[in-house]
Amino acid sequence: MRDVAVIGIGMTKFGELWEKSFRNLFVEAAKAAMTDAGVDKIDSMYIGCMSGGLFVGQEHIGSLMADYLGVAPIPATRVESACASGGVAFRQAYIEVASGMSDVVLAGGVEKMTDVDGGMATYALATAADADYEGFHGATFPGLYAMMASAHMAKYGTTSEMLASISVKNHANGNLNPFAQFPSKITLEGVLNSTMVADPLHILDCSPVTDGAAAVIVASLDVAKKLGAPIVRIIGSGQATDSIALHGRDDITTINAAKVASQKALQQAGLSINDIDFAEVHDCFSIAELIVLESIGVFEPGKAGAAILDGYTARDGKFPVNPSGGLKSKGHPVGATGVAQIVELTKQLRGTAENGRQLANAKRGLAQNMGGTGGSSTVHILEA
Amino acid sequence: MRDVAVIGIGMTKFGELWEKSFRNLFVEAAKAAMTDAGVDKIDSMYIGCMSGGLFVGQEHIGSLMADYLGVAPIPATRVESACASGGVAFRQAYIEVASGMSDVVLAGGVEKMTDVDGGMATYALATAADADYEGFHGATFPGLYAMMASAHMAKYGTTSEMLASISVKNHANGNLNPFAQFPSKITLEGVLNSTMVADPLHILDCSPVTDGAAAVIVASLDVAKKLGAPIVRIIGSGQATDSIALHGRDDITTINAAKVASQKALQQAGLSINDIDFAEVHDCFSIAELIVLESIGVFEPGKAGAAILDGYTARDGKFPVNPSGGLKSKGHPVGATGVAQIVELTKQLRGTAENGRQLANAKRGLAQNMGGTGGSSTVHILEA
Repeated sequence: MRDVAVIGIGMTKFGELWEKSFRNLFVEAAKAAMTDAGVDKIDSMYIGCMSGGLFVGQEHIGSLMADYLGVAPIPATRVESACASGGVAFRQAYIEVASGMSDVVLAGGVEKMTDVDGGMATYALATAADADYEGFHGATFPGLYAMMASAHMAKYGTTSEMLASISVKNHANGNLNPFAQFPSKITLEGVLNSTMVADPLHILDCSPVTDGAAAVIVASLDVAKKLGAPIVRIIGSGQATDSIALHGRDDITTINAAKVASQKALQQAGLSINDIDFAEVHDCFSIAELIVLESIGVFEPGKAGAAILDGYTARDGKFPVNPSGGLKSKGHPVGATGVAQIVELTKQLRGTAENGRQLANAKRGLAQNMGGTGGSSTVHILEA
Repeated sequence: MRDVAVIGIGMTKFGELWEKSFRNLFVEAAKAAMTDAGVDKIDSMYIGCMSGGLFVGQEHIGSLMADYLGVAPIPATRVESACASGGVAFRQAYIEVASGMSDVVLAGGVEKMTDVDGGMATYALATAADADYEGFHGATFPGLYAMMASAHMAKYGTTSEMLASISVKNHANGNLNPFAQFPSKITLEGVLNSTMVADPLHILDCSPVTDGAAAVIVASLDVAKKLGAPIVRIIGSGQATDSIALHGRDDITTINAAKVASQKALQQAGLSINDIDFAEVHDCFSIAELIVLESIGVFEPGKAGAAILDGYTARDGKFPVNPSGGLKSKGHPVGATGVAQIVELTKQLRGTAENGRQLANAKRGLAQNMGGTGGSSTVHILEA
């Protein structure tokens, strides 16, 4: 397999974007990435999108986007793994370039979630859970993650304050991200006093419903060098699955798919988690970030909460997490999220993160993207 | 890139399968393919599915199926390109093995379409067209293909009898396929006298709504040889896109995505269409088979109709097409169709097609799968 690099990045502002259509969101991000890479031609593309059918009544998404981007008849494939769809799109682009089949491939992600009413958005998202055994009984994601949070609290003494501190940190980071949906700073008290959605999760423990798109250009290292672009190498890629139903897991206080995916990616890179400088992880709920950090080995099980409260994962902490603002503050257009994580890693590794958001020591970053309650996960490791 | 072979095949009977769930359909086909290949372990898998969201309220399909197949935590990715989703899944499995990343990969496809009412099925399928410009105005696929048929008739003098002869041939083939949904033989008069769905297309010009799944195991040639399985090599893979809206095409009497995909696949194989012995093509409507055969160069534009009426594409003709019965007789569970085409190619190339359906001269076969009215297409060439 060939060496592969990220040579271009682009994304739309995330938010409730009434003036931008599904296809226009994708094209805006894709054009930005191509411009950033300095290429006007790509060999093929992959698009992460969770549920074009339910959110916008549109499937056949690869071809639609290739046409509107003006690159047809190149191959264009939509991939789906619920909220990990973007991570999977990036991995497919990586595999295709590594294989030698293509030299320059676009990996994008898009979701337009706000053009349906709230009930439909909740239903569409719930299709990431087991429709026959979870959805059938009315389980939706705030409730499922609330069960995980309750179990973690019972087993390890994790507190609501620890969870709230994750949201506070992510909003502090998102406050400096011009692409963030909710850049406002929030406080511990603000989170703890916000509306309870599913005990113990308050509304400020939950990521929002968002419209947005992100795209990156992936190329062989040889092509990247010829283009003279700033090069960020992809040195590890992992993907794993698990029961998408919580009842199918041995232990709901850990996420095995994230663990396996990170092990695979680290193994490929020949590194341990201690060799990584920072991470973007999938904080669809505050408890998700906490459990993921324990699952990928940043903390021992049960130890993340106190450390996070103590600033370990802040921008100036020992292991910064979600310098972009994460899903919580930046927003979570589900199909785009995994690609937006790669955009942030690339910015940090290039040293170009905006507004003083740049980390002091960013040589190697890890992106962890996740579907549902952890039924799927991808992990990628990038190096400056 | 490494040499790659198909080493195992499996499929469910196609039909209105009330007793089999979405997940069970996939597992049945996947287990059959693994048994056929003699493997109890796979490295990863791809699943073609067009609209789990609209047909069964289920996304996150890769992980769900990996779990129920008992192979989690391996990577599992659902891919979508409308009715070409299965062909794309096969291509992704091919790329992953060719890259050297994996040795044994499953490519499957599944759709359960009959658990919704007819209006919903028509709506779900219409999401393969342009939702904003075609779907918005009420266009659905029988109407869109009827426009293509009318244009072809006006330009070339193609007749309803020529179209009907395609359905008659495909039912004659499907009559010998134990997996076919509608194995009954039909007559030219029967087609021409059947209900008009969208002038000039009668109901017997249209493929049905179907439940079903298909799966194949793809492996590196080295692994295939070690396993001692009958080897069918993948010698060409092509994929292409086009406007998914008919109004975006220069000419609706040809399908450019099929043309480009077949050129790519033939180029990779170092062959011309004259070197191919038979094909499975995407006959979602009778006119589709006719236009595809012209687009991939089996016939000159405007020449397919008369030749087909004359038996050129019959089982004992010069270039047999859809020996499986095609989508028309075998059935069309959209996500599974592209993989089921590979199942048929493999049977023919192994010399194991059932019930006297075996072709006399089957050394190289071509499978052409298509999304929508030709907004996407894959072409694969397999060799015994």
